[in-house]
Amino acid sequence: MCQLLGMNANTPTDVMFSFTGFASRAQEHKDGFGIAFFEDAGVRLMVDAQSARTSPVAEMVRRFPIRSSNIVAHIRKATQGRVTLANTHPFVRELWGRYWVFAHNGDLKGYAPRLHGAFRPVGDTDSERAFCWLMQELAKAHASVPPIAELTATLRELAPTVAAHGSFNFLLDNGQALWAHCSTRLHHVVRRHPFTRASLHDDDVTVDFAAHTTPQDRVAVVVTEPLTKDETWTPFAPGELRVYVDGEPLDLR
Amino acid sequence: MCQLLGMNANTPTDVMFSFTGFASRAQEHKDGFGIAFFEDAGVRLMVDAQSARTSPVAEMVRRFPIRSSNIVAHIRKATQGRVTLANTHPFVRELWGRYWVFAHNGDLKGYAPRLHGAFRPVGDTDSERAFCWLMQELAKAHASVPPIAELTATLRELAPTVAAHGSFNFLLDNGQALWAHCSTRLHHVVRRHPFTRASLHDDDVTVDFAAHTTPQDRVAVVVTEPLTKDETWTPFAPGELRVYVDGEPLDLR
Repeated sequence: MCQLLGMNANTPTDVMFSFTGFASRAQEHKDGFGIAFFEDAGVRLMVDAQSARTSPVAEMVRRFPIRSSNIVAHIRKATQGRVTLANTHPFVRELWGRYWVFAHNGDLKGYAPRLHGAFRPVGDTDSERAFCWLMQELAKAHASVPPIAELTATLRELAPTVAAHGSFNFLLDNGQALWAHCSTRLHHVVRRHPFTRASLHDDDVTVDFAAHTTPQDRVAVVVTEPLTKDETWTPFAPGELRVYVDGEPLDLR
Repeated sequence: MCQLLGMNANTPTDVMFSFTGFASRAQEHKDGFGIAFFEDAGVRLMVDAQSARTSPVAEMVRRFPIRSSNIVAHIRKATQGRVTLANTHPFVRELWGRYWVFAHNGDLKGYAPRLHGAFRPVGDTDSERAFCWLMQELAKAHASVPPIAELTATLRELAPTVAAHGSFNFLLDNGQALWAHCSTRLHHVVRRHPFTRASLHDDDVTVDFAAHTTPQDRVAVVVTEPLTKDETWTPFAPGELRVYVDGEPLDLR
């Protein structure tokens, strides 16, 4: 199984603490990793078909901390598709003059959606096919970029169609909002004032968030398995789709 | 004026020598730089809105040589659009299940093409508008990815429409071929057996290509201004569009 990491914050935030814990899981997920950072509407994508433990690109991510309000990362254990750059998540497409970033954890069996629109997979993964289909259907459902609540309603209609083919845990981000859909495993935490200390599950690393934040900061982190020992991670229910804006989940129900 | 650098080779090639000379020109082109490397169908894009002289991303490009058969690089001096990541070349889009990379040098005055297709600019440069229009028109002209000769014929029809608005030196690459169009300034060289030594114009660096190549290697380099003192660079004629495959220009006339 691959692992997902998403972050949505109300201020550009250093993701290094979370990425460090996340990348340490890469031994079991040696078939590549990727991380996409939004900087306003622009997106910076760093991907490698090597393990995040040994990749020089991952080393660079750790050496040059980048601050961003919207981040999607993925470490890959290939289930479908070869180990190549073209098959490495996250994937990026443009729609309505915005970049969209997508990463998937799961396995869709016999998934061959009809792709008659403007989005075609470059690689040969089930994940990129699902992303292209989501983009195609969003493009058909809305003439231009709709309000987040409307986009969320459309995604809640679309996700079960894909999830019928297998497990479909995904993160989708357009630089304004982070959508997270759970089929099997996904957890989130919202870090906000008063900030506390947290220790990584996977490494002997502790960070005092209070020392690195202001009281106004708010950061939502979504991840396959909880990253820290001393924070309360909320599991998603199977079939649940959440959307995060300005560092917290929107309640649209 | 921005500067362009493109490379098309018949074998994955280390671009560091050319990039070093190219990046040293960044003092005058301080508004960002970008470089895109194809790895088969996948593409790796490294961009920064900082100068290539000081950017940590450019430092990483120099530290971790990447071998590729198709490379497009750009250093930017902003004429239109703010200095942001979203405005930094090269731009990438997907069409027919392939990634397309585009970089532009020039200034298109009052250029507002009708964009009614699937490609919209994310930033606010004339260059990205021109790229979106080219992609839109290619998508209309061909149902799926056509042979390189047909694509070249279509691009030869399309380029003058954009060039009517100003200078339109551009590089376009889909991982199979590199297209280069000249309005004002562009040069190329083909490095092939017997390889010689070459010294960079801008830095005190000499490389002996014979020591780093096999007799079968062939590399075409396209650049705004010649990079080396001791190679014969061929200037493009204004209005000329060339296409490079496997490290040499195709003669389609």
